[in-house]
Amino acid sequence: MSETKILASYIVDSRYEQLPGDVIAEAKRAILNFVGCAFGGCREPAVDIALSALVPYFGPPTAGILGRPERMDPLHASLMNGLSSHVHDYDDTTPGNYSHPTSPLASAMFAYASANRVNGRDFMLAFILGFEAESRVANAVYPSHYDAGWHMTGTAGVFGAAAAIGRLIGLSHQQMIWALGLGATQAAGLREMFGSMAKSFHPGRSAQNGYAAALLAQKNFTAGERGIEGPRGFAPVTAQQYDLTKITKGLGVDFDLRVNTYKPFPCGIVNHPTIDGCIQIHEAERVTPGAIDSVRLQVAPLVLDLCNQQNITRGLQGKFSVYHGAAVGLVCGKAGLHEYSDEIVNDAEVRRVREHTTAVGDAQLSEDQARIDVRFTDGRTVTKFIAESLGNLKRPMSNAQLETKFRDQSMAVLPAAAIDRIIEQCWTIDGMEDVGALVKDARIGSRNPGGQG
Amino acid sequence: MSETKILASYIVDSRYEQLPGDVIAEAKRAILNFVGCAFGGCREPAVDIALSALVPYFGPPTAGILGRPERMDPLHASLMNGLSSHVHDYDDTTPGNYSHPTSPLASAMFAYASANRVNGRDFMLAFILGFEAESRVANAVYPSHYDAGWHMTGTAGVFGAAAAIGRLIGLSHQQMIWALGLGATQAAGLREMFGSMAKSFHPGRSAQNGYAAALLAQKNFTAGERGIEGPRGFAPVTAQQYDLTKITKGLGVDFDLRVNTYKPFPCGIVNHPTIDGCIQIHEAERVTPGAIDSVRLQVAPLVLDLCNQQNITRGLQGKFSVYHGAAVGLVCGKAGLHEYSDEIVNDAEVRRVREHTTAVGDAQLSEDQARIDVRFTDGRTVTKFIAESLGNLKRPMSNAQLETKFRDQSMAVLPAAAIDRIIEQCWTIDGMEDVGALVKDARIGSRNPGGQG
Repeated sequence: MSETKILASYIVDSRYEQLPGDVIAEAKRAILNFVGCAFGGCREPAVDIALSALVPYFGPPTAGILGRPERMDPLHASLMNGLSSHVHDYDDTTPGNYSHPTSPLASAMFAYASANRVNGRDFMLAFILGFEAESRVANAVYPSHYDAGWHMTGTAGVFGAAAAIGRLIGLSHQQMIWALGLGATQAAGLREMFGSMAKSFHPGRSAQNGYAAALLAQKNFTAGERGIEGPRGFAPVTAQQYDLTKITKGLGVDFDLRVNTYKPFPCGIVNHPTIDGCIQIHEAERVTPGAIDSVRLQVAPLVLDLCNQQNITRGLQGKFSVYHGAAVGLVCGKAGLHEYSDEIVNDAEVRRVREHTTAVGDAQLSEDQARIDVRFTDGRTVTKFIAESLGNLKRPMSNAQLETKFRDQSMAVLPAAAIDRIIEQCWTIDGMEDVGALVKDARIGSRNPGGQG
Repeated sequence: MSETKILASYIVDSRYEQLPGDVIAEAKRAILNFVGCAFGGCREPAVDIALSALVPYFGPPTAGILGRPERMDPLHASLMNGLSSHVHDYDDTTPGNYSHPTSPLASAMFAYASANRVNGRDFMLAFILGFEAESRVANAVYPSHYDAGWHMTGTAGVFGAAAAIGRLIGLSHQQMIWALGLGATQAAGLREMFGSMAKSFHPGRSAQNGYAAALLAQKNFTAGERGIEGPRGFAPVTAQQYDLTKITKGLGVDFDLRVNTYKPFPCGIVNHPTIDGCIQIHEAERVTPGAIDSVRLQVAPLVLDLCNQQNITRGLQGKFSVYHGAAVGLVCGKAGLHEYSDEIVNDAEVRRVREHTTAVGDAQLSEDQARIDVRFTDGRTVTKFIAESLGNLKRPMSNAQLETKFRDQSMAVLPAAAIDRIIEQCWTIDGMEDVGALVKDARIGSRNPGGQG
């Protein structure tokens, strides 16, 4: 039995009425988180550079992108949304495969919706089906595929974009099989790119390539029909071990959206329990400047392998410093995009606390745990133990916390009224007549009204 | 020492004056063969479909494509040239890695040259450097990479396109390292697609992606700097065994163009010695209709594994029928594109001879060898043994044979005068002021003057 064929049939035949309510609710959370990430990242140099390099090649400007005024063809818009939404490494994660599934998928879908009228129910159905397609393909090859060096957000993402766009444009069963095949044969993205702009290029290119796969299949451009499971297909070629039953088991009953998670802080996930605990201390103790004398952290040994930088001067370095995470949690009481700017990394009080923080590895602690001991200048000491990190499946971010994150990401790009409106649109997206209005609102509300468009 | 860095330096620093004359001569043969393949394939359904699916997304029409009147942006033109030139599986092959190196490379380069003024010397230098880049990367991972299921023409091709376009647009050392990294992280193409249109999509997409990699790098879009050899780079991720010394050894002294080969017949290469022998019999015996009674072939066993179809009705099936190859060789005295059309597959005399042909495997024979026994209706018998197949390195196609192949491929697309002119342009391409004129001539000479243009 062909997994590609079963998956294609599922994508083509599913109906909105069959979707469980909790899955629709989780899809809205994923979309809110995605849109916020795109707003947060859309002014980054990676996006500016990609725009300037490729603008001479843009097709007719039928599509918009999230958070910026430029208009372009939907394929390039998919790429730009992907760059924006992943560039801060702040997007969602499925713990079963450690991919960031919404970026490649929704980047293509919002590009499509900005150029074509799509109602909210069709959009949500395609999103949920696309999410399943990519996350299930990723589950089938994880961890062997990831360990080999593939960036799953890039490699699996193309299946999500192909499935979702294919569903929106009404592919037949045969065409959907070809679209998945054309996705499979474009799957790419190396972990060697981590730390460079090319990392966020991966979900963007996957979005663009998956979108193109659907367009080609719609005109009956043929592909191998066992693109995922065939002997020279995606799974056997890219993973030494794989389990194809993960693609088909429980299809239509189990949904990977139910295990999707959202990052509360824009930095390496292993720093999250430390930051979480420090913010709790800030709030409980109403920490004021100069109040902290010194900090001692006990963390999982992996944290020190990955995030042991203390003498830092740039925001990007802060993402890999557990000391900086502790300092901003204690001093600022939050750790959003601004706390990872060059300005805050060089703030005198943050630097002072960072430099008075020590960290030791403790093999008894998991990466979801941290112990924080704070000595105050008045002689008091406070200890905090975090047993489960905020954002993981046992302590999921609440809708309110996701909204706070969204506002933090959007405030540099949009006025407050537009932010409120777009949050409301995300929560009620299934009732929208035209999902493209969301992109348009974001664009019209842009603080850069002088731009083209 | 970083192979990516060494390769990048070689591409940036090489000068035309350093190129050996025999390498320049071989590059012209590769280009003539490529242009002919693009003319031969440009009217295939795969090209028509890709054009119709993607035309709404084309950017400003600054570029032309080989053999057709449509104009589009150079990135999409790269894709279309790649489809045209590979769709008949008639393009060149490097025996060290079994990739078809010129298609992804020259597809991008002719797209570039049709939109930007490039003189022949700059074009040839970039072509030769791009050829080395992709063929050396392919050599480093072959055969493990190919055996795993990768289509090397797709995966390695992107390095060639990135290198050549990067050289033409004058990337710095640092930018060329990024361009190769951006190529590496887009390397894709599964052998599972063989037998579908997606196979010829591979060199097209590689051309387009390599071109885009160079454009992004030019604007300082960063990538991992060890894209080829890093622990999560192209070679370790896509090949269980690899030899990076093949990338750097003899760089600037040894050239893979010297071992490039050209297919004399548009079908599975294992049929070639049989066809070759049958054509020789046709010529020596002046075979007329009805003269052949029966044919007996002795071939390498692999031939019967791959090409054992006898009852066929379609041209594409003929490519995988050693019986059809024998029949057209004996009856028609040639085996060009027309001899693999539906019309000739269903021709009464060809069918009769095909059905009176038997084949047996002989483990003593290599895939370059065949023994042919023909019984004529007048009672005579003729035997022919082919010890080396036409087109391999020991019996390379002559320039005259390449021209004959070119004419066969081009005659359905171009008038004879244009064919003569373009052949002459290929042989003197290093002296051209503007290589784009070649694409323009092919387009103006098109037999479809009513198209957009």
